[in-house]
Amino acid sequence: MKELPALIEELENLNYKNLFQSDLLLTWEKSETEIEAIIKTAGILKEMRLKNISSRIFDSGLAVSIFRDKSTRTRFSFMGAANLLGLAVQDLDETKTQVAHGETVRETANMISFLTEVIGIRDDIFLGEGHSYMESVSKAVREGYRDGVLPQIPVLVNLQSDIDHPTQSLADLAHLINYFGGIENLKGKKIAMTWAYSPSYGKPLSVPQGIIGLMTRFGMNVSLAYPEGYHLIPEIETLAEENSRKTGGTFQVTNSMEEAFNGADAVYPKSWAPYEVMEERTALLKEKDTKGLEELERKALENNKRFMDWECTEELMKKTNNALYMHCLPADISGVSCEHGEVEASVFDRYRKETYMEAGYKPYVIAAFMLLSKVKNPAALLKKLTEGAKKRFIG
Amino acid sequence: MKELPALIEELENLNYKNLFQSDLLLTWEKSETEIEAIIKTAGILKEMRLKNISSRIFDSGLAVSIFRDKSTRTRFSFMGAANLLGLAVQDLDETKTQVAHGETVRETANMISFLTEVIGIRDDIFLGEGHSYMESVSKAVREGYRDGVLPQIPVLVNLQSDIDHPTQSLADLAHLINYFGGIENLKGKKIAMTWAYSPSYGKPLSVPQGIIGLMTRFGMNVSLAYPEGYHLIPEIETLAEENSRKTGGTFQVTNSMEEAFNGADAVYPKSWAPYEVMEERTALLKEKDTKGLEELERKALENNKRFMDWECTEELMKKTNNALYMHCLPADISGVSCEHGEVEASVFDRYRKETYMEAGYKPYVIAAFMLLSKVKNPAALLKKLTEGAKKRFIG
Amino acid sequence: MKELPALIEELENLNYKNLFQSDLLLTWEKSETEIEAIIKTAGILKEMRLKNISSRIFDSGLAVSIFRDKSTRTRFSFMGAANLLGLAVQDLDETKTQVAHGETVRETANMISFLTEVIGIRDDIFLGEGHSYMESVSKAVREGYRDGVLPQIPVLVNLQSDIDHPTQSLADLAHLINYFGGIENLKGKKIAMTWAYSPSYGKPLSVPQGIIGLMTRFGMNVSLAYPEGYHLIPEIETLAEENSRKTGGTFQVTNSMEEAFNGADAVYPKSWAPYEVMEERTALLKEKDTKGLEELERKALENNKRFMDWECTEELMKKTNNALYMHCLPADISGVSCEHGEVEASVFDRYRKETYMEAGYKPYVIAAFMLLSKVKNPAALLKKLTEGAKKRFIG
Repeated sequence: MKELPALIEELENLNYKNLFQSDLLLTWEKSETEIEAIIKTAGILKEMRLKNISSRIFDSGLAVSIFRDKSTRTRFSFMGAANLLGLAVQDLDETKTQVAHGETVRETANMISFLTEVIGIRDDIFLGEGHSYMESVSKAVREGYRDGVLPQIPVLVNLQSDIDHPTQSLADLAHLINYFGGIENLKGKKIAMTWAYSPSYGKPLSVPQGIIGLMTRFGMNVSLAYPEGYHLIPEIETLAEENSRKTGGTFQVTNSMEEAFNGADAVYPKSWAPYEVMEERTALLKEKDTKGLEELERKALENNKRFMDWECTEELMKKTNNALYMHCLPADISGVSCEHGEVEASVFDRYRKETYMEAGYKPYVIAAFMLLSKVKNPAALLKKLTEGAKKRFIG
Repeated sequence: MKELPALIEELENLNYKNLFQSDLLLTWEKSETEIEAIIKTAGILKEMRLKNISSRIFDSGLAVSIFRDKSTRTRFSFMGAANLLGLAVQDLDETKTQVAHGETVRETANMISFLTEVIGIRDDIFLGEGHSYMESVSKAVREGYRDGVLPQIPVLVNLQSDIDHPTQSLADLAHLINYFGGIENLKGKKIAMTWAYSPSYGKPLSVPQGIIGLMTRFGMNVSLAYPEGYHLIPEIETLAEENSRKTGGTFQVTNSMEEAFNGADAVYPKSWAPYEVMEERTALLKEKDTKGLEELERKALENNKRFMDWECTEELMKKTNNALYMHCLPADISGVSCEHGEVEASVFDRYRKETYMEAGYKPYVIAAFMLLSKVKNPAALLKKLTEGAKKRFIG
Repeated sequence: MKELPALIEELENLNYKNLFQSDLLLTWEKSETEIEAIIKTAGILKEMRLKNISSRIFDSGLAVSIFRDKSTRTRFSFMGAANLLGLAVQDLDETKTQVAHGETVRETANMISFLTEVIGIRDDIFLGEGHSYMESVSKAVREGYRDGVLPQIPVLVNLQSDIDHPTQSLADLAHLINYFGGIENLKGKKIAMTWAYSPSYGKPLSVPQGIIGLMTRFGMNVSLAYPEGYHLIPEIETLAEENSRKTGGTFQVTNSMEEAFNGADAVYPKSWAPYEVMEERTALLKEKDTKGLEELERKALENNKRFMDWECTEELMKKTNNALYMHCLPADISGVSCEHGEVEASVFDRYRKETYMEAGYKPYVIAAFMLLSKVKNPAALLKKLTEGAKKRFIG
């Protein structure tokens, strides 16, 4: 690891001024240097904590979280990130609120934001809804700020939508950069984002979409593999294609897991539901059609079974260029968490530590974005903090 | 807005020493100057935050919240207020506690208070219960303090009881004062607190009661309007009458919405359940008589329908003196949140921003009371804080 | 109370260096001087707070709580302790997480710990499980630290397991020491830990086990009394026996409440389920055998009824040496919280204040352990903090 002053100087040389007061909804709304700035700042904050230097920049202030789906690691990452900067987290538990009593999104968004600096939202269950909801919240609080209702702009962090999962993909990117020794070393590396069999169904598309949407931007050769019928949102596949063309990388879609693994430097085998199933599921969920949902699940699981051989095995790993195994966790490990799953136990065991390290970047990636979106001159502030070196923990 | 030193000097000249270590249960237990001190301190804290001056006076300490009914804005206001002063909020979720195992109020109140500075309670469902419960908690922790069990007196903040909703009415008052340019300008202004039609039922009486109990104390002409049978707790109507006599204002009850609106400077049209219905509902809730509750709801809603014309329309607004529209939110907006509701969409739209501003005073009103009840010499402390000008946010 | 410098000097003279980075799972894993150090540090932290001296040693950092059973006082004690030192609490609510989706303990433990200093766990429902679970979590995060996944070791605090309830028994010990005027005065004092009748069933064994496991270590004469068939985990009774032999105290088991009360200096009458019933209950709970559980409850309660005379009455209290009545609360008080219970109302009333004081040590005992396990040189740090005397509350 480089020393802090060197890291901060590198940050200073990047153009990321548009991150100020921006939201983090989709990574492809950010420029490459902005993404680099987030990753670099995450590294700086991580290093500061290791060196016991406080990065508390808020004396008071709230970070609001809205989880419309279950979450462990993202919940704790958001909490940890907010706390690292001095914000207190207040969860908006929609079952305990008056949302049901007819509150509009606009109103609620403002009501929870009088003292709020950041809002983190997970909304990934309904296709076509999560991202729109986040956009409405953002619009509402920005209007509130313009009208003088709110004394600051609460910036939004997408903690997983139907389209993207930026805090995950950015943590994955940080891990890749660290593993390969620099962002410049990603050029020409092959990463395989592949579907894998799981005995469950209905897993969101946002992780694979986030990966192909982000990793195609740094000259990587991205290979997306899935069984016929398991494609992602078509527009995102197109976007990945365009990204790769711009950065001198490649983007390839295949129906063969082996083809994707061939010569790969990193593999990301993970289950997801086919786009059409997710669409049907969304419709049924909205109608609360329990019977229809059960029937859909039955059919979808039966269809999944046709592709039980889509498993990340030791044999497949041998086809790779000694690839790094990646996963957003929890993985379905064959013989451990289920009979047949996404990955052979011995592969996972060998890379367990790496997957934990991968997850460990998430709190810092979130904290980095919070800092870059709230602070006018981040590099100067980080310099001041590291030079002052106030201890995070006196003990 | 006046400058901070001027505001603090104004505060210094008020007599509010009895707020120290007091509870905020009913606004009518406070003197006019004490209420003025709360409003003024709220303004100071709001201004300090705008100027990025820290008002953190606690390095550690808990604020406990007990919500026996749903809440969004009050929950976030309490959280924001506590955080602004440096307190961490811990919610007493009665479903997760051993309360059911036979704990008495006295015991629980002490057990949650060893390190607690403030307790906020919402208990508005059962008529005749919420306020009594708050009084028991207050008695218990004060006894605990006297006995040396607790190292400090945890002061209570009523976050809505069956009788009053002081943090709401004080926020409303702050809004009125700001809107009309000073507390002295309220004298002679007419405010109409009127019932309005809503397709839901069982809404608490505490908001209208809070409004007539508070606004009758500053020389305002308060007009309370409701359909026959929709009266409030009789003692509170009597209290409003007495208040107005003391301050040279007036208090009038009418069964005509139009009469109340005539020449009004501010209108507050809002649905509530008739007192008798609330009494019957309380009895049925206690007996867990689901069928009886359904029958009561059916009857009450049917009765409500007789008064669908109690709606705040553009036409009615024309009868006013260009009145400010007020609401505690969420409002039932005709054609938006329901077919027929409390207010016409165009009226609400025109005043949306104002209602948001109104709500925005709540966190500061709560923080102000916390500060005034915990600190021995608030004006001197606020002076020190503003002169020291420690930044709330370094960025 | 002695002055702070004197207390800190006493702490300095104790050997407790093995507490550093250790867990608090069972008190009998700690030496007598380590236990004394925890109690002494709790006293110092309590005194510091009374003197308005900040003991905030963390500028940021998380304390994670995992409650697998209901809790009021322990939840608030953990929250208060963490907050006193500057940590923010994040609860792992297993119903809101993906734990059910096949996460292993090892993985979850690491995922919640990237920024976590302390983990508090209550897991007392299944006999033979709670303690093992805590050991797995501890093993996982220590492995994570060794592997470089975690930047610090999150230490564990047992907030009640199937075996021990150390934060309770240590608070009880602090209370005894304070009541009798010093740890040296416990020598020769008789304490009666006795079963008492309750109209409920299934209460954990960890409190009586914790008491006999801890109080037998300071030369006390511990008398454990229960009706035939209501014994504790046999190994813990044996351990208590061995403890007492080492410290010159005694440990006696009897089936007579009166015999235990005879000449006692302190009595701790409390209901618990017989070991065999807990074993059967654990098996039924795992099988989710609702009918079997109901049948077991019926039988157990019927059996309990044979021992309704096991009540702490005024008459029984007369047999004691003017004993201190103790309870972990909430107590089943005859004629108050139930018809016939553990204790006569007049006895409880007389000692209510004492039981509240007893409970009041818990937050400080937890904070003390947190500090001793996280800080390398606690006495020096406490000295620095008291000399610097930064105010906890400026007001």
